[in-house]
Amino acid sequence: MSRVYNFSAGPAVLPEEVLKEAQEEMMDYRGCGMSVMEMSHRSSMFQGIIDEAEADLRDLMGIPDNYKVLFLQGGASLHFATIPMNLMKNGVADYIITGQWAKKAYQEAQKYGKVNKIASSEDETFSYIPDCSDLPVSENADYVYICQNNTIYGTTYHELPNTKGKTLVADVSSMFLSGPMDVTKYGVIYGGVQKNIGPAGVQIVIIREDLLRDDLPAYVPTMMNLKIQAEKGSLYNTPPCYGIYI
Amino acid sequence: MSRVYNFSAGPAVLPEEVLKEAQEEMMDYRGCGMSVMEMSHRSSMFQGIIDEAEADLRDLMGIPDNYKVLFLQGGASLHFATIPMNLMKNGVADYIITGQWAKKAYQEAQKYGKVNKIASSEDETFSYIPDCSDLPVSENADYVYICQNNTIYGTTYHELPNTKGKTLVADVSSMFLSGPMDVTKYGVIYGGVQKNIGPAGVQIVIIREDLLRDDLPAYVPTMMNLKIQAEKGSLYNTPPCYGIYI
Repeated sequence: MSRVYNFSAGPAVLPEEVLKEAQEEMMDYRGCGMSVMEMSHRSSMFQGIIDEAEADLRDLMGIPDNYKVLFLQGGASLHFATIPMNLMKNGVADYIITGQWAKKAYQEAQKYGKVNKIASSEDETFSYIPDCSDLPVSENADYVYICQNNTIYGTTYHELPNTKGKTLVADVSSMFLSGPMDVTKYGVIYGGVQKNIGPAGVQIVIIREDLLRDDLPAYVPTMMNLKIQAEKGSLYNTPPCYGIYI
Repeated sequence: MSRVYNFSAGPAVLPEEVLKEAQEEMMDYRGCGMSVMEMSHRSSMFQGIIDEAEADLRDLMGIPDNYKVLFLQGGASLHFATIPMNLMKNGVADYIITGQWAKKAYQEAQKYGKVNKIASSEDETFSYIPDCSDLPVSENADYVYICQNNTIYGTTYHELPNTKGKTLVADVSSMFLSGPMDVTKYGVIYGGVQKNIGPAGVQIVIIREDLLRDDLPAYVPTMMNLKIQAEKGSLYNTPPCYGIYI
């Protein structure tokens, strides 16, 4: 058999050894007589899987203890709404537009508050990352938002924006685990796993604990309340178990 | 190897032949050299998978052409919000409470409009289905909501409620494909697939086309706009590809 390596944007190649292990354990996960797809998400077996996934990610990315790691559903596109719903305390956010994903996030956020475009490279079809060393960050901005890597345009931030003390939020869907990151520089790091880590259907959100709030707008669905999800260890409802296992 | 059959609430046993086929195709889906977990959701291969899943479901349930079939994320719990967000045109809905899932849906819907409890069996710990032949259905109710099967309490509706002409919405997570259903009696049939059809992380929504609306409240996330999802054939963003394949 000749393996095909899909490096495109979107779902992409997984390590052969991961697929082989999943193949071997398909009918019987470590002697339990079931596939991971068949076991209860409330079982100690599955708790072991999600705990290991979190511990591995914490280890690989050096995630400090004051950050929560959540495994959620909906893709980055749902989180374009989740982020402003949870973080817009003052109702203000600043966005830097470096590609279609940042632009979509910017458009979605406008449903939830005052959103400022403080820099953009759309004038040259997103072919560059704007100088972000001295941007007009809003005084009462709840956060500054970036999509840190833009596969379609071949651009990436080599230096993080100067947010002038405001919380930095980054969509890292297309660069998750592709290199070292200093997590402490961010308030929220999030992304879909399908490009770099696992199969489509799992979304990882790494969020600094002090950003989790109780006083969200009344319309925020319970499932999109990050504080509730954090308190339940991503098990408020049935998570995408198999994706987390992979 | 002795197979264990998990029949609990939540994720449950899958047919051995399904797991065997998934096992065989893990490294190479039908000669394409990739796992389904690695291929683009925009590829013709994946389009074939989702088309086949929809066609099979239409065939098994006898779903008429004027109903859309959507494969979404978030679990039934996210749809406790999606349903009122999309269907509350008058801002009014009637709920029948026969267990904790109906109750949670009822509580969530209160975020989005006036929600009436028109019947309940909570007085006897949900041990029965109330008589629903002549309920005080609200004159301007956008829909009447039921959770049609209640695993925890061992109850199920043997007869559908008389909704007096209003749209019936049913959560069928725990009874999906367990017997014939007359789809035409419902406006929306929805549920997570993890109990009866596939692995956790996929949500099926069957909705009558005329219920899809453009004029949703401004706060509705794009991903929860059922009309947009229907227009994009569940491919507005990357869907849970592997779950749909299983």
